[in-house]
Amino acid sequence: MNVLVINSGSSSLKYQLIDMPNESVKANGLIERIGAENAKITYKKEGFKTSNELPIKNHEEALTQMNSLLMDKQFGVISNKNVIKIVGHRVVHGGQSFSKTVEITQDVKSKIQSLCTLAPLHNPLNLKGIEVAERVFSKAQQVAVFDTAFLQSLPQKAYQFAIPKSFLEDEDIRAYGFHGTSHKYVSEKAQVFLKSKNQPNSKLISIHLGNGCSMTAIKNGKAIDHSMGFGPANGLIMGTRAGDIDQSVIFYLIDKLGYSAEQVNNILLKESGMLGLTGSNDLRDIQQQAEAGNEDCQLALEMNAYRIKKYIGAYTVALNGLDAIVFTAGIGENSALMRELVCKDMDVLGLQIDQSKNQLTSKESRDISKANSKAKILVIPSNEELEIAKQAYKISN
Amino acid sequence: MNVLVINSGSSSLKYQLIDMPNESVKANGLIERIGAENAKITYKKEGFKTSNELPIKNHEEALTQMNSLLMDKQFGVISNKNVIKIVGHRVVHGGQSFSKTVEITQDVKSKIQSLCTLAPLHNPLNLKGIEVAERVFSKAQQVAVFDTAFLQSLPQKAYQFAIPKSFLEDEDIRAYGFHGTSHKYVSEKAQVFLKSKNQPNSKLISIHLGNGCSMTAIKNGKAIDHSMGFGPANGLIMGTRAGDIDQSVIFYLIDKLGYSAEQVNNILLKESGMLGLTGSNDLRDIQQQAEAGNEDCQLALEMNAYRIKKYIGAYTVALNGLDAIVFTAGIGENSALMRELVCKDMDVLGLQIDQSKNQLTSKESRDISKANSKAKILVIPSNEELEIAKQAYKISN
Repeated sequence: MNVLVINSGSSSLKYQLIDMPNESVKANGLIERIGAENAKITYKKEGFKTSNELPIKNHEEALTQMNSLLMDKQFGVISNKNVIKIVGHRVVHGGQSFSKTVEITQDVKSKIQSLCTLAPLHNPLNLKGIEVAERVFSKAQQVAVFDTAFLQSLPQKAYQFAIPKSFLEDEDIRAYGFHGTSHKYVSEKAQVFLKSKNQPNSKLISIHLGNGCSMTAIKNGKAIDHSMGFGPANGLIMGTRAGDIDQSVIFYLIDKLGYSAEQVNNILLKESGMLGLTGSNDLRDIQQQAEAGNEDCQLALEMNAYRIKKYIGAYTVALNGLDAIVFTAGIGENSALMRELVCKDMDVLGLQIDQSKNQLTSKESRDISKANSKAKILVIPSNEELEIAKQAYKISN
Repeated sequence: MNVLVINSGSSSLKYQLIDMPNESVKANGLIERIGAENAKITYKKEGFKTSNELPIKNHEEALTQMNSLLMDKQFGVISNKNVIKIVGHRVVHGGQSFSKTVEITQDVKSKIQSLCTLAPLHNPLNLKGIEVAERVFSKAQQVAVFDTAFLQSLPQKAYQFAIPKSFLEDEDIRAYGFHGTSHKYVSEKAQVFLKSKNQPNSKLISIHLGNGCSMTAIKNGKAIDHSMGFGPANGLIMGTRAGDIDQSVIFYLIDKLGYSAEQVNNILLKESGMLGLTGSNDLRDIQQQAEAGNEDCQLALEMNAYRIKKYIGAYTVALNGLDAIVFTAGIGENSALMRELVCKDMDVLGLQIDQSKNQLTSKESRDISKANSKAKILVIPSNEELEIAKQAYKISN
């Protein structure tokens, strides 16, 4: 069955057509600069790739263009758009309303709309993508997969902030977490690894290191703690985001140094993290400079790894045990150095990295711990689109 | 030798006269409501206690009144003020200038003055106390003991924030930490406990739970990480302070809910923590209500303990091992329930609390872990005044 996965942003739209349940990707691509005269549409299928520049007025036109490529006589993969039976949409914020994937109804759309206050940069665009897809693929079932859903299992002690409780009750201010689709995908893959070693229960920590970075503590398949909170700004050090920061700094910048709250927020989101520490937010660049002796870069890598290490310690206590940590997403899958720094001096938790396994590059899931490592160190490539397709396919069957 | 310890606040002044090196307290007390017509001065020595209400104009008068009590013919403990050889002052913020106790000179006073920006509520008052004491006890050596000094050994990866590095270089924005005098005192006491068990090196976590709450990771006597930061607001959940909070919440309150930055800071410092969660900031009251079935109180205690547990995990990783955790200060010394909640389900770190030892009340340092607990659980009463006297005495000899 053809499942189309759509991830809709402000001026871009990622798509992937997946044949389920055999999980084979028929085609995928990206539409950029929607609204501009020089929009760009990319289309890939096995052994074939094309990209065109053309004016694309809006998201509806973008989906129509994508559809033309999917149906192209020469290099298309479907005969007509009605063979797409399900459209799975990534929706960033499901708030407290959605703890799992749902079929999209009028009521679901109203709820996604009402959550726009909590995710003003994402939910309106995700909703737009849904409404356009409903028109363009009117015969298909529309399904919403929420980035926050997997993290709705957090216990209250983990999601509530220690502020007046009316803020939770009246304003829904609490930790929601993000990257839930990725954490769910890799933790389930990890459970397969562990089950083959006869472990019926599992205590996992998934470490998603990409543009955004977050960690989740997962007990027997359920998320019990997570490093991001109400927004996607705190927790780990990211490319341009500070992650955890003492609130006193924020008020000092505003009260004593004359910044506006908006400027401070901007600094913490766009000028901080690895960029603020080193001048670059490209990890490969930072690693090269660190090797060449740049002390800022060396320190930034140490700080980044140290933050992750401390979360591993905190979550091991939250789980009261640890079977495996799982690295995923761009940096987690590809930076052997970052994995090495994180796993260094972690004997206390029984983590022993195998240096030669860690250095191997691979697109496959793999165990990079030493044979005698009490807890395993896994690298599992994330695939949010496939997870969205799996979930969308599952609820329609 | 007579050492007078002074802790000077806005309208109050705590004092303690200690005979060193034998560490015996000759007299101590508190002066409250300085500046008011009905100021109150309390004076205690062994077997004797008095308190009077009288007008006290300023800090100078306060010290003069205190001196009269110390020299009183009937119940005084010294014959004249010149037998006070050292005055040890608690100074809250030593910034990056002071990593240890120093004799007060003009230069030291200038530096304390220049740090007033970082600690506007405390350093000006500490400085006032110093200047008054210099006049009243002009023959004594004046010594400054900084609350931040013990924490100056933090490595850069622990004290730097992941924001543009110019904020550290140009504005001294970094984690300083607080309660250093208490953490130093109890960790040294703990080392004595552990050394008797033939442990040459030590990996300790001290947990100071009082009005303010903080934790320190201490390796071989040196602080390597700490839960408070640039100000005394973050880290653990406190009586009225939120501790760690996602910065997104702050910007949401300002941008979307219309609060001013000052109001948000006030909420996080004065209306949050246990008070915000339960309506009370009296832990005994909260514990009683929790036992009576109040769910808000039960949750608040769980959240409080959970935060501490996660810091224990994080710091165990930072130390790559753990010999003991040390509870201290009002709540740490007296709340068996809080200690129990913190130590529950901590097998992964080898912590096993002995329930009956935990229930015993005592003013003494004690080990409340089971015999087979891999890491020890200690309760060590803090004594910041004695630590100040010890340090002041040490540098003068």
